[in-house]
Amino acid sequence: MSDPGLPGAGRQLPAELSGFLRPGERADDLQRSSLFIIQDPSRFCFGMDAVLLSGFVTVKPGERVTDLCTGGGIIPLLLSAKTEASVITGVEIQEAMADMAERSVRMNGLSERVRIVRGDLREKGAAGESGSQDVVTCNPPYMAEKSGIQNPESALALARHEITCTLDDAVRESARLLRNGGRAAFVYRPHRLSELFACMREHRLEPKRLKTVHPFRDREANMVLVEAVKGGGAFLKVEAPVIVFSAPGVYTPEIREVYGY
Amino acid sequence: MSDPGLPGAGRQLPAELSGFLRPGERADDLQRSSLFIIQDPSRFCFGMDAVLLSGFVTVKPGERVTDLCTGGGIIPLLLSAKTEASVITGVEIQEAMADMAERSVRMNGLSERVRIVRGDLREKGAAGESGSQDVVTCNPPYMAEKSGIQNPESALALARHEITCTLDDAVRESARLLRNGGRAAFVYRPHRLSELFACMREHRLEPKRLKTVHPFRDREANMVLVEAVKGGGAFLKVEAPVIVFSAPGVYTPEIREVYGY
Repeated sequence: MSDPGLPGAGRQLPAELSGFLRPGERADDLQRSSLFIIQDPSRFCFGMDAVLLSGFVTVKPGERVTDLCTGGGIIPLLLSAKTEASVITGVEIQEAMADMAERSVRMNGLSERVRIVRGDLREKGAAGESGSQDVVTCNPPYMAEKSGIQNPESALALARHEITCTLDDAVRESARLLRNGGRAAFVYRPHRLSELFACMREHRLEPKRLKTVHPFRDREANMVLVEAVKGGGAFLKVEAPVIVFSAPGVYTPEIREVYGY
Repeated sequence: MSDPGLPGAGRQLPAELSGFLRPGERADDLQRSSLFIIQDPSRFCFGMDAVLLSGFVTVKPGERVTDLCTGGGIIPLLLSAKTEASVITGVEIQEAMADMAERSVRMNGLSERVRIVRGDLREKGAAGESGSQDVVTCNPPYMAEKSGIQNPESALALARHEITCTLDDAVRESARLLRNGGRAAFVYRPHRLSELFACMREHRLEPKRLKTVHPFRDREANMVLVEAVKGGGAFLKVEAPVIVFSAPGVYTPEIREVYGY
């Protein structure tokens, strides 16, 4: 799947906020709670996967949430609007992406609720204190390290390939950050679902909810959403599938209503 | 889900075949290749799960298939009509069920292609020779051993509860019976999907196809279909979901066309 972003032109960024942008960057209207996100099309723009994850994850009022591999901070921004989480922390390894996310947070006046941390999940403790979080979200790189890679330094390669963060890194750190009974919600690719389940269970995250995402009703899934509970017992609910399009170019009511497209 | 059986009255059993029936039994028209199946409503009647599994599994011409926990032999009977398998073996532990299955096979004149074996999967080798099968199908008991059980001796209890056969027994024996590269196809309950995946991988059966079955488009799944390959690499395809009803009591075209309801 390519990254469709959000449809429609949306509003223009108010002129007084243009100082947050650097050359080559643009501010996209998230069409929710007046939020804008700074993106650089030459680097990496968020896709529907992040938006679906923000609509899928269970977050209760007052809970502390950390988003790993946050990129430009799309998930923390959306969760600030969609949930009553107390503090939302986005962790990103790439300096330039973390900087962009941090400016998006300030530009939206969210600095009190949303924090961006630059950190490497491979370094022990870099993503936060053990057992400190109620919820962890993650849209991890889903391609094996060197499969078909063009430029391993590029932001796009780092976001998609397991170069600086493997699935195991992301799952292990999620489990470490969560309190017992806390939830980890991942969006991932179907072809690695059995690996994701195995990896989660290895780290005591028991899959509890699965939602498959299909572009059309009669097509195979191109994304899966999984929510697991730290230390939970085995009982998985396979929820109604998400169907994205009812006809070519026409979003289903569910995508428009639940996910805001 | 209750066991709806096949809808419609179907044909009556030709009088010359009535000698195959014992008191209390009936012969149900499978509405496919003129097949009938002997069932005893006081024991256990097959459900949609068996029919869906027979439409889901990949069987190529000439392949050898074994169905574990075959009960009254519904899956071997349907596979004899739906595939060009060379020999189909049904393995059942309960004497009375195996006897009923065996009479169904003879009544349909299928003794040359379909064999019923009475065997206990917990006894080494009882289900057949190691590495001898191209495909194994199984609709295993899906309820943990003693959860809410009324009468542990009843045929219904044995079919639904892990009394004489656990998930691990069924998966381990499937793996043992299959040649390398052979396929194991299971129908199971969603709430134990992550256990099924874990159990399969433990026995070197890699899940390759998943299909979730939902009673209605907007409802959670009540069955899952999984096909795994012995010794295969990790790459799962999450196929388009099966939706059973388009409105209360109205089967979807897919259920009618693909599965013959």
